[in-house]
Amino acid sequence: MGISRWAVKLEYCGSAFSGWQRQESALSIQQVLEEAAQKLSGGIPVSSITAGRTDAGVHALGQVAHLDFPDSVFYNSKKIRDGLNFHLIPHNVAILDAAPVDKEWSARFSAISRSYRYIILNRPSRPALDENRVWHVKRTLNPNLMAEGAQFLIGKHDFSSFRATACQAKSPFRSISNIHIIQQEDRIIIDISARSFLHHQVRNIVGTLKLVGEKTWHPLQVKSALEARNRSAAGPTAPACGLYLTHIGYQPDPFENPTAQTTRGNQLVDKERS
Amino acid sequence: MGISRWAVKLEYCGSAFSGWQRQESALSIQQVLEEAAQKLSGGIPVSSITAGRTDAGVHALGQVAHLDFPDSVFYNSKKIRDGLNFHLIPHNVAILDAAPVDKEWSARFSAISRSYRYIILNRPSRPALDENRVWHVKRTLNPNLMAEGAQFLIGKHDFSSFRATACQAKSPFRSISNIHIIQQEDRIIIDISARSFLHHQVRNIVGTLKLVGEKTWHPLQVKSALEARNRSAAGPTAPACGLYLTHIGYQPDPFENPTAQTTRGNQLVDKERS
Repeated sequence: MGISRWAVKLEYCGSAFSGWQRQESALSIQQVLEEAAQKLSGGIPVSSITAGRTDAGVHALGQVAHLDFPDSVFYNSKKIRDGLNFHLIPHNVAILDAAPVDKEWSARFSAISRSYRYIILNRPSRPALDENRVWHVKRTLNPNLMAEGAQFLIGKHDFSSFRATACQAKSPFRSISNIHIIQQEDRIIIDISARSFLHHQVRNIVGTLKLVGEKTWHPLQVKSALEARNRSAAGPTAPACGLYLTHIGYQPDPFENPTAQTTRGNQLVDKERS
Repeated sequence: MGISRWAVKLEYCGSAFSGWQRQESALSIQQVLEEAAQKLSGGIPVSSITAGRTDAGVHALGQVAHLDFPDSVFYNSKKIRDGLNFHLIPHNVAILDAAPVDKEWSARFSAISRSYRYIILNRPSRPALDENRVWHVKRTLNPNLMAEGAQFLIGKHDFSSFRATACQAKSPFRSISNIHIIQQEDRIIIDISARSFLHHQVRNIVGTLKLVGEKTWHPLQVKSALEARNRSAAGPTAPACGLYLTHIGYQPDPFENPTAQTTRGNQLVDKERS
């Protein structure tokens, strides 16, 4: 039996999950997605590969995974999206889009960029509406100083100071394409993009920039921390709850016009002709 | 024993509450606020009056209430805010600000405007991150048509068609000062302000404008519905979970510079001198 590979774009709230990756004793997003896909395929197990294996508590607005469905069933984008959404109830995971891809395409290895957003709620009062959705920092942060410190991290560097000790990547080198920091009322929003990230890299960067924002550190100390190539030289890891995986870049983007496509056995056909 | 009256600004998630008003058998925001205030006052009961008695499931970003504390204790804005926030844990209710007001000032009767925001998530996929925070409408809505229909509701009118049958207000006349409708990605955001509203008025307006947005109604039918002065002539009531009380207007605004103020027995004194 052949397979049809589908790319799906996901939104999820990470609070109730142990993270993306399947685990024996805790509920993962991968598990609820694969179980929903198995129901949609009439009981045949469906495996998934994701672009970003988010940690426990991390949210997503635009995660991407691919799923290999048996090609014995006729699928189209709408059926995959709506069918998975139906079977994902009551979990806080939703399929925003689905698109057929060929069997060489990989959500993980075809990705050319990953973008994250980190949200700090910067006010004295604790969050009532956004509990577990933001990092609550009471001390006033200066976003301009944070942006000044962030500039030293842009480009290709050895990020040993900003990688988790458990990180399994072979190389500590990564290329950060941009870091944008803005203030919106009582929130500080940090947008950061790279081809790929080391484990905890975004959260370690945010935890360090927070020291700059509260004036514990001078922006230049971010440069020294980076150059030290030693985890203990940088700031603490910011909590998972403020982090959102926002976008995965592909060239071409399979979601550009997905609802006009449908497959039988991985053959792309126009919707008008099916 | 005298009292010191304090205005407090609140943010809350309405999902876990039966609404603002105290009830025998269900948890209300008023109850958790008054219980927190009683703890702060060393066990002396504290009563509250609010600007807007929100329904079950309705959220607030800028609700205002006043609390009468015994003036035997020394209070300041920071102590009220932080003390109440401490005692409000673990409820999803937070005090954003506190300001001393005189005994003639009322959160309810001194209010000169009330502003609400309604958020519609307008996309095929159900919300994963904003469950219970938005109204999920799958059918594509046209915000320009909705704005066209909304124009007939601005100004002073008999809003009998848009008031709950249980509404206890003496007059069906209200003056809507503005309705702004914008689209932000997959959300349609409706901002609406008036001196005061009838029961369910905002939700009945949104439920009606949704009919216009999906092209079930022509914008002109909003005018006919208004003129009918009959609840059955307008659209259905939009769900509570998409509604946010955003702002209560006062002239002067007690929160304009509250942290510079403190009281003992309702006498305003400068912070510098206390």
